[in-house]
Amino acid sequence: MRNVRLTIAYDGTDFLGWQVQARGRTVQGEVMRALERMHRREVKVSAAGRTDAGVHADGQVINFRTDIDSLPAARYHVALNSYLPRDVQALSGCEVDDRFHARYSATRRVYRYYWTASLAVPPAIRHRVTRLKYRPSIARLNQLARPLLGPHDFSTFTPPSEPSENRVREVHQIVFYPSGRFIVMQIAANAFLWRMVRSIAGTLIELDKLAAEPVEVEERLAACDHAAAGPSAPAAGLVLHRVDYG
Amino acid sequence: MRNVRLTIAYDGTDFLGWQVQARGRTVQGEVMRALERMHRREVKVSAAGRTDAGVHADGQVINFRTDIDSLPAARYHVALNSYLPRDVQALSGCEVDDRFHARYSATRRVYRYYWTASLAVPPAIRHRVTRLKYRPSIARLNQLARPLLGPHDFSTFTPPSEPSENRVREVHQIVFYPSGRFIVMQIAANAFLWRMVRSIAGTLIELDKLAAEPVEVEERLAACDHAAAGPSAPAAGLVLHRVDYG
Repeated sequence: MRNVRLTIAYDGTDFLGWQVQARGRTVQGEVMRALERMHRREVKVSAAGRTDAGVHADGQVINFRTDIDSLPAARYHVALNSYLPRDVQALSGCEVDDRFHARYSATRRVYRYYWTASLAVPPAIRHRVTRLKYRPSIARLNQLARPLLGPHDFSTFTPPSEPSENRVREVHQIVFYPSGRFIVMQIAANAFLWRMVRSIAGTLIELDKLAAEPVEVEERLAACDHAAAGPSAPAAGLVLHRVDYG
Repeated sequence: MRNVRLTIAYDGTDFLGWQVQARGRTVQGEVMRALERMHRREVKVSAAGRTDAGVHADGQVINFRTDIDSLPAARYHVALNSYLPRDVQALSGCEVDDRFHARYSATRRVYRYYWTASLAVPPAIRHRVTRLKYRPSIARLNQLARPLLGPHDFSTFTPPSEPSENRVREVHQIVFYPSGRFIVMQIAANAFLWRMVRSIAGTLIELDKLAAEPVEVEERLAACDHAAAGPSAPAAGLVLHRVDYG
């Protein structure tokens, strides 16, 4: 059995998220259905990031085992796309070592959050961006973000129902930058807690609006209590941008 | 009564087109409903281009009369957006001379058609692009397009049910160019016949695939018969890009 790794992209708008659920349309469900039609048996699939309802991916990574030997791994994504709906598509593929696991082997996940301060959100991108009703300071947002760098207990930025007991994660990068009409936050970490990116995004925007100082972020982080976080940013602005390995 | 001109954008995916119909969701219907809520009476709206079902607009122009004097015309679009659904938004606005009419005053409409030859269409833009299963020659497409420049009877490129008796239109520009992963056709004319852009787009792609010579386009144009056209390109790749006046 060959181990195949694929990079996939999806528009999260019409999905209940990555993970298969008892009812409702999920990305994992669509990918498994397409693989089942190709293999004529159930094929298990792992993903690097279990994105929530409405969250998009430009570079999600998945892996699975295949016994279809006639298909070179580099053409696998093309064959799979003909079975996938248009809101999930595989972008590239390769064969990987048997030990490779999309989730456990990942060393870094990179997410982007997109806002706009425009008075009108262009309809073509309305599901990929959140509108801000004030003009944020990118310089202040970058100052506010700095205390989050490094390894920390991020309990403040996840709901109490987060299943991991150990809530230490290492943030490698967090940067705000303008891009066309957008304000983008790019955040990279070894791994993220449930809803962590949206909680950080929403809290930093709230603190920027209040013209807060970075010490305020330090205090909220140190509280290790979700009540210290601001409102979470909506799902629609969030994109799983890339996953790194090794 | 002031005459207000607005530039609007929409995602045509969930619309039956611009023009109000007996049943079904239309862009004009949504704009009129929003204006009616603002004015508490019916407000008639004209548009430069009556786009079909599934066709998008980045720069459609509309006009209407208003008696709301408290609102500067330059802020009109902001007020209207709060009544519009997210798939139609006004981008800018101004007050215009009483003689201005969005449709009859327009001197040039500019459309763009987007294709990709990628094996996977990124899900985020799937409604804005048509996938080609071969790699087109941009140089040949530009040669094939040249005979269409200038004033011609474009009967070949419109269904027989087109209502205008005079089917002469003047094409000012038609150019194919690469843009990122896209192949774009930009076409500008004083006005277009019904489905003319999609018919030209589909025919030129067909002829490029056949490695045809420009004389073939001349012959098809001269036939003045829709049977001489190739298959029309799908609605989803077409965008009303801009409208010029005066």
